[in-house]
Amino acid sequence: MAFKLPEYHPPDFSVPPFTESPLARFEVVGQEGVAPEGYHATSIYPEYLHVRKGDWRLIEKSRMDCVVVLENDGVLSVRPFRHLRVGDRVACGRLENGEEGIYVHTKGFDDPDRSEDKFQFRTRLTRETSFSIDYDELYDLLEHEKGKGFVLWVLGPAVVFDRDARGAFVRLVEEGYVHGLLAGNALAVHDTEAAMYGTALGQEIYSKKKQPLGHYRHLDIINRICSQGSIGKAVVSGLVRDGIMRALTVKTIPYVLAGSIRDDGPLPDVITDAALAQDRMRKLATKATTVIALATQLHAIATGNMVPCYKVGGETQVRPVYFYTVDMSEFAVDKLANRGSLTARSILTNVQDFVVTLERGLGRRCGP
Amino acid sequence: MAFKLPEYHPPDFSVPPFTESPLARFEVVGQEGVAPEGYHATSIYPEYLHVRKGDWRLIEKSRMDCVVVLENDGVLSVRPFRHLRVGDRVACGRLENGEEGIYVHTKGFDDPDRSEDKFQFRTRLTRETSFSIDYDELYDLLEHEKGKGFVLWVLGPAVVFDRDARGAFVRLVEEGYVHGLLAGNALAVHDTEAAMYGTALGQEIYSKKKQPLGHYRHLDIINRICSQGSIGKAVVSGLVRDGIMRALTVKTIPYVLAGSIRDDGPLPDVITDAALAQDRMRKLATKATTVIALATQLHAIATGNMVPCYKVGGETQVRPVYFYTVDMSEFAVDKLANRGSLTARSILTNVQDFVVTLERGLGRRCGP
Amino acid sequence: MAFKLPEYHPPDFSVPPFTESPLARFEVVGQEGVAPEGYHATSIYPEYLHVRKGDWRLIEKSRMDCVVVLENDGVLSVRPFRHLRVGDRVACGRLENGEEGIYVHTKGFDDPDRSEDKFQFRTRLTRETSFSIDYDELYDLLEHEKGKGFVLWVLGPAVVFDRDARGAFVRLVEEGYVHGLLAGNALAVHDTEAAMYGTALGQEIYSKKKQPLGHYRHLDIINRICSQGSIGKAVVSGLVRDGIMRALTVKTIPYVLAGSIRDDGPLPDVITDAALAQDRMRKLATKATTVIALATQLHAIATGNMVPCYKVGGETQVRPVYFYTVDMSEFAVDKLANRGSLTARSILTNVQDFVVTLERGLGRRCGP
Amino acid sequence: MAFKLPEYHPPDFSVPPFTESPLARFEVVGQEGVAPEGYHATSIYPEYLHVRKGDWRLIEKSRMDCVVVLENDGVLSVRPFRHLRVGDRVACGRLENGEEGIYVHTKGFDDPDRSEDKFQFRTRLTRETSFSIDYDELYDLLEHEKGKGFVLWVLGPAVVFDRDARGAFVRLVEEGYVHGLLAGNALAVHDTEAAMYGTALGQEIYSKKKQPLGHYRHLDIINRICSQGSIGKAVVSGLVRDGIMRALTVKTIPYVLAGSIRDDGPLPDVITDAALAQDRMRKLATKATTVIALATQLHAIATGNMVPCYKVGGETQVRPVYFYTVDMSEFAVDKLANRGSLTARSILTNVQDFVVTLERGLGRRCGP
Repeated sequence: MAFKLPEYHPPDFSVPPFTESPLARFEVVGQEGVAPEGYHATSIYPEYLHVRKGDWRLIEKSRMDCVVVLENDGVLSVRPFRHLRVGDRVACGRLENGEEGIYVHTKGFDDPDRSEDKFQFRTRLTRETSFSIDYDELYDLLEHEKGKGFVLWVLGPAVVFDRDARGAFVRLVEEGYVHGLLAGNALAVHDTEAAMYGTALGQEIYSKKKQPLGHYRHLDIINRICSQGSIGKAVVSGLVRDGIMRALTVKTIPYVLAGSIRDDGPLPDVITDAALAQDRMRKLATKATTVIALATQLHAIATGNMVPCYKVGGETQVRPVYFYTVDMSEFAVDKLANRGSLTARSILTNVQDFVVTLERGLGRRCGP
Repeated sequence: MAFKLPEYHPPDFSVPPFTESPLARFEVVGQEGVAPEGYHATSIYPEYLHVRKGDWRLIEKSRMDCVVVLENDGVLSVRPFRHLRVGDRVACGRLENGEEGIYVHTKGFDDPDRSEDKFQFRTRLTRETSFSIDYDELYDLLEHEKGKGFVLWVLGPAVVFDRDARGAFVRLVEEGYVHGLLAGNALAVHDTEAAMYGTALGQEIYSKKKQPLGHYRHLDIINRICSQGSIGKAVVSGLVRDGIMRALTVKTIPYVLAGSIRDDGPLPDVITDAALAQDRMRKLATKATTVIALATQLHAIATGNMVPCYKVGGETQVRPVYFYTVDMSEFAVDKLANRGSLTARSILTNVQDFVVTLERGLGRRCGP
Repeated sequence: MAFKLPEYHPPDFSVPPFTESPLARFEVVGQEGVAPEGYHATSIYPEYLHVRKGDWRLIEKSRMDCVVVLENDGVLSVRPFRHLRVGDRVACGRLENGEEGIYVHTKGFDDPDRSEDKFQFRTRLTRETSFSIDYDELYDLLEHEKGKGFVLWVLGPAVVFDRDARGAFVRLVEEGYVHGLLAGNALAVHDTEAAMYGTALGQEIYSKKKQPLGHYRHLDIINRICSQGSIGKAVVSGLVRDGIMRALTVKTIPYVLAGSIRDDGPLPDVITDAALAQDRMRKLATKATTVIALATQLHAIATGNMVPCYKVGGETQVRPVYFYTVDMSEFAVDKLANRGSLTARSILTNVQDFVVTLERGLGRRCGP
Repeated sequence: MAFKLPEYHPPDFSVPPFTESPLARFEVVGQEGVAPEGYHATSIYPEYLHVRKGDWRLIEKSRMDCVVVLENDGVLSVRPFRHLRVGDRVACGRLENGEEGIYVHTKGFDDPDRSEDKFQFRTRLTRETSFSIDYDELYDLLEHEKGKGFVLWVLGPAVVFDRDARGAFVRLVEEGYVHGLLAGNALAVHDTEAAMYGTALGQEIYSKKKQPLGHYRHLDIINRICSQGSIGKAVVSGLVRDGIMRALTVKTIPYVLAGSIRDDGPLPDVITDAALAQDRMRKLATKATTVIALATQLHAIATGNMVPCYKVGGETQVRPVYFYTVDMSEFAVDKLANRGSLTARSILTNVQDFVVTLERGLGRRCGP
């Protein structure tokens, strides 16, 4: 089945009530990092601002919970509050229906309506939901995105705790299905620990044997990479001989390692400042056409905050951004939805199996 | 806050399309235990059958996934398929809107509409949902039901694995908040094990100490009660000196212990045949005005299948039946919903805390 | 890697303290279904009874929480309490070290000792544990058992809720990896529902589309199979054209469908009496050399109760019985262990992926 | 029951093999932030260094995964790797038994031995474990610590999502059971959101009603507090009229709010740099005699890394540090253990109920 991007249907601004709408209102920032009263906050959906009579401009590179700034060059940019400077002009207005010159467009890619019975079973997604079609759709999507999109992966450390999952992810990198990666210190630490010692947190990632003094392994690899100066240098020097970090380095695929208070070390490549890390993550996030988040609530929610459900430009004028999250618990899935990532698709399983199954399925389909 | 039952709004059958509806169609059973083609299956909602021109009869004592039989005396009874006998007249028709003389009424107790934003947080129930109001509503509800309702409890064994929870539930029985109980062998076994040995599965229910040869404790109590002939006799004889089973026995509160393949023993009071157990459970379920299911997927779903969201008769003509389920995982809650118990209210917590908090809260409010 | 059964090391009864041990004591049953005071209860481990001076007899077909009866023909049989008859001679004694003529042998198949650090990470099994080796060991084990063992599967309904998992399990049956199956009504209902309608509980098992009036589907299939008399007849008649129940029927692989209070119907093949179902299940369980339980706490714990960790006879004198459980939650795994199935191996993942991965892995290895 | 600290039993260094032990070896740091080969890493346990013949010095303010530096003044300090400077003398040696002059003492506070049966139920902690005694022990412990200890709380945002839990925690602060708090941006945001709007993430924390434009609430409060400059100022100005942050401010109880990539804002008081946040957190952590972590994996594990199982000084020479973690899932508990917090005690429940129950229980006992 050839994958086809769904068409985007923009609102028709030539009809009422839009023809009656006022222009969007902008207020000036009076205190650094503080938005004016009544600021408009962005969502994951396409939003249009009425900037000149009859000219509704779609904001680009949006994300949740930011404000819209009218730059001096007339561009509308989406900024976190902390990047507001005195004098910035911030869009104001909270009605989303155009009455204040702002329109939030939630139905741009809508599926055809489904009629529903009064009484129904299986209205909720759980581990017992069928996921066969999700794999098949992912195969098609990833083949498409390989050439024409930007697949951003968000990884928890569990992916490198298992030999087969780690190996499968390395092959996904090598075969071109990974265009960017967001993760934390632990992913890089245990991936390079596996490269050097075959362990993660001291336990062998295949045999599960706990090595003697295994609780030193992750500290040893951190210490060595710190000594060399960066993961990249440790790859070049031959210290890190395999694994995900090496594959990314070899293929010069961009990644952001964001620090957290849980980190040992951290590795020299880790950005310990959360605000700076967010900025770097968002730089990758704005390129993403598909995001796949595996077994990490922290990074999945952080990335979910940064990724709108659409992307402007490229192959089509406006296309959807696909957001998948894979986790073991209904709670993780629900929590993401409760924080506003309403269009995320979820697969409930162990990421070890997910990555292995995905890679095998892609491999099969690529075959002659 | 005095509790008040919400009013029931029956459909207005004096207006179209009901005035045009045909009578409900009944087909005759030709094979024992097999419904005629096109049978109508019941749901948890009030359903009306058009039995005589202009006479829409509300079915009583309904439950999910059964058929409606027109008895010889003109009564409509709701029966499981396995109780169909040759010659029974079964209501047929699958449209729920009256076009086949059957109307499913899902909005009888509806809350006032809520307007919704386009973009919203917290659309799903999780462990992070606030539950303060649920406790307060339960206090009010249970005070009401104590006198005027029938509170049916469905208990997993976890309730008796903890001293304080077990004690709190005993007080709920003694104070009149328990009118019936559905459970399995394990609840009765470990409750009486606790009465005799202070343990559950060999572990003390307060100190958590594992008694020597503790894995004999539940077998010993089963063997002793089998020797005496029943739980009731073991209470009378003094073998079972405290706990939930004793409290129920002393207050002659009805209970059904349904067997399962997981059971040791079982105790003599356990009904090992699932079909017979269902019949006995349903007998209690049809009396219920409030159901509270604690930490048991098997019994909660089984009971959920048996309990409609309304009850005919009593104080008011038609009143809601409240169904609460308390469990630790979002999965359990979602699974219940996926099986059709769509109106159940869920509290996500450990039942130990739930029972203790509930009993203290009721106690407080009862105080002078 | 060719699979090799680990050797069994029986105790050396020719040395003290065994040479000093008294004979095992047997007491006579005085009341039907009631064991004499001080009865000995069995565990999952090999147990030896000192029946004649110097003759320690290993009990066969053991299971947890039963008693040992010395039959008239001198055979030691392991019986549930409810099958005790007046006059039966029951082994008594609770010491497990031989001092009462009974010896519980927990180290028969022991792994070589592992030295442990004082301070260690990763002492517990979780979803983040590596499972690659478990798959590889299962491939080897199943290839061995295919010819020389008896693989008993215990299935929750989730396996048939997904097209790929259902298909993969059918192939496991066809290729000879399934020698017996234990399940409930729901598995057979939704498997045959899928055969007839492509749905499970009304939702298509591939597209996830909810069919109109989908909540009738499982009732319709139950009603039709009840009309035909059995699943087997429905396969022969062509009503059930594919799926697990058909594959089992075609290959005449034995199965037990045990009823529960949650069941609709049930199907005619379901044994509704829990005690009878246990007897039938145990008949299969005593043949098992490997048990694999997927996504069912009820059936997994029930089967865990019935399966000892060893089997007498066959290829070797005494061999281990492997017990795997696959589930999504640490709780399910821990609960099984807390009920005494101490040697079970657990894989934490979605059974959909597990079955698909397993079948593909076996397929690969079978290839030329 | 009056609480009594368990006695600490130091090792007896006057006997072999300690009398034969070499002195601990110190190597000099040659590169900033990099430990010398063979460095010794600390654990949660008391560790002794043989610094002068016969003089085994107990390290103080230890924590997991750090190194021991011999300062110029002869003090042994425990430092994260990133704080190593060229010339620092770092203890080296990985044997923990004294053979390299380092001794890790895991049995200082040991409970009396428990004899174990060969076959046992209930070896694992789950939601079905009894927790009554944990509450009672906590009541006693907290009464003790109120006067003589330092109770450090680690809070996930769930605590302020519920009215009763939030209120109960405020009372714990007011009554003196809280000496320090570690949390993230979300806790402070939603606590102050509740103070101003009665909501958390836009949903009322009692009625659960979703306020219109509720997704603005947390942004509004962040924006306002940013405008005022700090939480403290917002309390003084009257913007924040109730809640946890206000109670801490009023009682000048120290807290650390550590930033993460998931944060909106953040609030001005949040430390966005993870390394700096760790340093500040550790400053509080080294004072702690009891730590209670509620519903946060990130902060619980981070704190678990920082808190050893003992504390030197005060009332007794060496006393245990109690570490409790309260969470809904076995996974969270196991994960903490897998990362080395081996002595943590866990209660599996919803923190809403936990806090309410704890506060009521303390209140009761405090009464006249």
